[in-house]
Amino acid sequence: MKKDKTTSPADSGILDTATTRREFLKKGTAAGAVAAGGMAMALIPGKGNARTFPVPPKWDKEYDIIVIGSGFAGLAAAITAKEAGEDAIILEKMPAVGGNSIINGGLLASVNSKLQEKEGVKDSVEIYVNDLLKAGRGLNHVELIKMVAMEGSDLPEWTAERGVQWNPKLEHLGGHSVPRTLLTTNSSGSGIVKPLTDYYTGKLGGKLQKKTKVIGFVRDASEATPNSRVLGVAVLENYAFDYKSTDGDRNNKSGSRKFYRARKGIVVATGGFSQDPFLRGIQEPSLAKPTDQLDSTNHPGATGEVLEGLFKLGGAPIHLSWIQSGPWASPNEKGFGVGSSYQIAAGFRFGIMIDKATGRRFVNELADRKTRADAMFKVIGDPKKPVYPFTIADSDEGVLAAQTLQKCLERKVVLKFDTIEAVAKHFGVPLEPFKAQIKEYNDYVKAGQDKQFGKPIDKFIKPIEKAPFYVMEGVPKTHHTMGGVMINTKGQVIDMETQEPIPGLYAAGEVVGGPHGASRLGSCAIPDCLVFGRICARNVAKEKA
Amino acid sequence: MKKDKTTSPADSGILDTATTRREFLKKGTAAGAVAAGGMAMALIPGKGNARTFPVPPKWDKEYDIIVIGSGFAGLAAAITAKEAGEDAIILEKMPAVGGNSIINGGLLASVNSKLQEKEGVKDSVEIYVNDLLKAGRGLNHVELIKMVAMEGSDLPEWTAERGVQWNPKLEHLGGHSVPRTLLTTNSSGSGIVKPLTDYYTGKLGGKLQKKTKVIGFVRDASEATPNSRVLGVAVLENYAFDYKSTDGDRNNKSGSRKFYRARKGIVVATGGFSQDPFLRGIQEPSLAKPTDQLDSTNHPGATGEVLEGLFKLGGAPIHLSWIQSGPWASPNEKGFGVGSSYQIAAGFRFGIMIDKATGRRFVNELADRKTRADAMFKVIGDPKKPVYPFTIADSDEGVLAAQTLQKCLERKVVLKFDTIEAVAKHFGVPLEPFKAQIKEYNDYVKAGQDKQFGKPIDKFIKPIEKAPFYVMEGVPKTHHTMGGVMINTKGQVIDMETQEPIPGLYAAGEVVGGPHGASRLGSCAIPDCLVFGRICARNVAKEKA
Repeated sequence: MKKDKTTSPADSGILDTATTRREFLKKGTAAGAVAAGGMAMALIPGKGNARTFPVPPKWDKEYDIIVIGSGFAGLAAAITAKEAGEDAIILEKMPAVGGNSIINGGLLASVNSKLQEKEGVKDSVEIYVNDLLKAGRGLNHVELIKMVAMEGSDLPEWTAERGVQWNPKLEHLGGHSVPRTLLTTNSSGSGIVKPLTDYYTGKLGGKLQKKTKVIGFVRDASEATPNSRVLGVAVLENYAFDYKSTDGDRNNKSGSRKFYRARKGIVVATGGFSQDPFLRGIQEPSLAKPTDQLDSTNHPGATGEVLEGLFKLGGAPIHLSWIQSGPWASPNEKGFGVGSSYQIAAGFRFGIMIDKATGRRFVNELADRKTRADAMFKVIGDPKKPVYPFTIADSDEGVLAAQTLQKCLERKVVLKFDTIEAVAKHFGVPLEPFKAQIKEYNDYVKAGQDKQFGKPIDKFIKPIEKAPFYVMEGVPKTHHTMGGVMINTKGQVIDMETQEPIPGLYAAGEVVGGPHGASRLGSCAIPDCLVFGRICARNVAKEKA
Repeated sequence: MKKDKTTSPADSGILDTATTRREFLKKGTAAGAVAAGGMAMALIPGKGNARTFPVPPKWDKEYDIIVIGSGFAGLAAAITAKEAGEDAIILEKMPAVGGNSIINGGLLASVNSKLQEKEGVKDSVEIYVNDLLKAGRGLNHVELIKMVAMEGSDLPEWTAERGVQWNPKLEHLGGHSVPRTLLTTNSSGSGIVKPLTDYYTGKLGGKLQKKTKVIGFVRDASEATPNSRVLGVAVLENYAFDYKSTDGDRNNKSGSRKFYRARKGIVVATGGFSQDPFLRGIQEPSLAKPTDQLDSTNHPGATGEVLEGLFKLGGAPIHLSWIQSGPWASPNEKGFGVGSSYQIAAGFRFGIMIDKATGRRFVNELADRKTRADAMFKVIGDPKKPVYPFTIADSDEGVLAAQTLQKCLERKVVLKFDTIEAVAKHFGVPLEPFKAQIKEYNDYVKAGQDKQFGKPIDKFIKPIEKAPFYVMEGVPKTHHTMGGVMINTKGQVIDMETQEPIPGLYAAGEVVGGPHGASRLGSCAIPDCLVFGRICARNVAKEKA
């Protein structure tokens, strides 16, 4: 009978896990805990993640509503709860607010918005749902995206009233049938997170506690009662996230354990698991490597421990296998970086992507994310000896206008060359095929049709011929996890056995699986987070304390 | 505080689920249960699935090893355990032995087998693994399929020594680089299940208990100790599976609840969830319909309640989104039927598949399962008003040789017509395009190359011209669920939080996710089941009772 290896000194009186309940009850040492109502407190190991805890002898803190995570969904939930007069708190495990939302691109799709009306765009819930179904390969949970479309028309105003600034014109993003996307004035999700945080903590006086990691849920009875209420959370206060961890911060032992009660309910808004090598790697073994070999565009806290805890409570796992890699990233900087923006705006559109081994193109540079990423992974080959493809663009005005080009050059994410020969020499590319490829592509551009890979050639795309040339190596990085836990249209987490809501438990945002099916369309994450954050809060507020 | 709705009369003393542990301990009525060690017995609701139960006051039965399921994996595990002198039992929820294995096709891939040596086939673990990786889109858990390849060479002899009869020559199946597949003499998995069952219950005197449904696992401590041992199972004895259920038998209340202890461990071999509309439907909404609208080739007991129970214990969910539909089935009979065999042997190979609306082909009739199924679903359209495509073949000797043709005609799964005109009239197909399509295809056959869809034209494929014509309507039916719970190479179920084995818990066969990645190759299910059934048993036998 081995001791649980995570036992901490604080639990020195812990019983061996194989001790029977009968033996346990006979032992005098545990009597106090039992008398206090904490039936198995002495059986709880030191620290961990994703566990279901029995009711503690004493709650350390109590709130009406506990929101886990301070990204778009968490902020929308907490604001809605607080505006309704609820005693809410946001728990954030990181030392900073905003999770992955703060480094997001700030694009918001809104159906039947005032801006659409102003610009004369005819849109509908049906058109939106069909766009998402097409991108999602028909796997989407339609009732959820209908809800996002119907409840998301007022998001531009709702956010603006709380301090968010939007560009005055709609964007028309790939995969969307009509222009319906707004962009923050600072082209970033921080343009939403920062004003909403200020509004919540400032004007509303809302509670927000950083460095507080949720390590499990408290349930009021045995697991044999799947309809029992989730009463609160176990947390580690003063948690110091390990930014150097390569295991998704799984074995971090910092912080001190406390139990927080949620009188009305819990809203889980913890995001995706793009930075969790275990959880993403068991679905897609090529993603199992630590982050220094295979990076993600996400903030380092995008790990799956709370999602795992939801599955242990009985939450149904949905679409975990669908993990989206962003094909626009650079191997020469961490994360999303400055290269991704250059590549999206210029490298892929005005340039071509070349396999160093052949000097040839290998994919339509404007294909969907998955198509490009799959093709790039093939070219890259063995991740221990990667051969990164690169884009090459010339001194076209579209390229020079790319907002992050200068930063890319400073950080050597993009390199500048005077001749094609210099590019070939630097990267060891066979010169003649490379030159022939550029000529072939230029001919397609002049003819207005890419007969090689079907890249759409619009009037702004010019032949690649004007030195100097801009070259960026590329690598796909894990960007969005479509999978998560199942919810209904009220945001309630659904038990897989009963197919009914788990009382007291709600979820919103990337931790939820279903809305986006096999692949998420750009600018559809933010409305999903904001709409369901609000829906969760409205429904939790109705519960009895 | 509402009562659990599944409360049965037998639990009339049950407490409300929201009763606190403190109140519970104060109440004299529950004292007996507590004194007996059953800390929360009175909290257990009446009947259900997928629950984690605390230790009961008294075990009803005790064994060294409990095997759940009597298909290939379960039989291999129980035989191995029994031969090693262990006190094993197989629990089977259905009134008949064999689960889905008994209606399986009886094809066994074996690497480096004696038959390969005899036929001079050069094979290797590496070639096998690469074949599976190709089919599985690289998502396979390689360490598991390596194990199957390495430990599966002796399966032909191991099964033959226990009564299984194999054809004397190897088959070369699609997707396999070399011939490595054996086929039972009766072309069915029953040719394995029946002799192994006779051997196990007869010669070995092994225990096998039918109509016994596992509804949950017993764990020796709170869920807050993920490393605690799984001690046994809760079952319903004398369970009457509801064959008319359209909800995967979820709300069946038959049987009486008992607790069985497994001194050494449990081997879960419960198969896939192709007949579980909820579990498959949340991954792929088009599969959420009841089985009378969207059929499966599987036996009706292929539901996911035990798999859900494994997730609640902490088992990691893998690849649940990958569900394979068999494109060869008939809408005019239930399940796999007799039509599938005809379609595989003759309809797709010697005939062509036609969209009734256009009279034209729409897919390579010999493409992989997923490609064909996806194309057929598109043609079929709204499942409430389905337009099933059909294959048309002529009186070629290959067609007439199909083993199940006569049965298909008797059951009107295949219809016979004297003229193309009669076919067109019967199904409302536009005649001229239909005739033109047949002529076009016949020209491709004569030229030896299908320029329309790239179907491989071998020398046995002839033009379609010789009346009478044989026509079979087709529909894809859910066939194999790639997803399941994660195991290691010892067959141990892995906890998603600790990434370590859950003590006492093993799994083998289709309930496991990972080996086959995104799509399983034909004839690779049986070796996976048999190898991991044996591995599980060998490792459980080593555990201390």
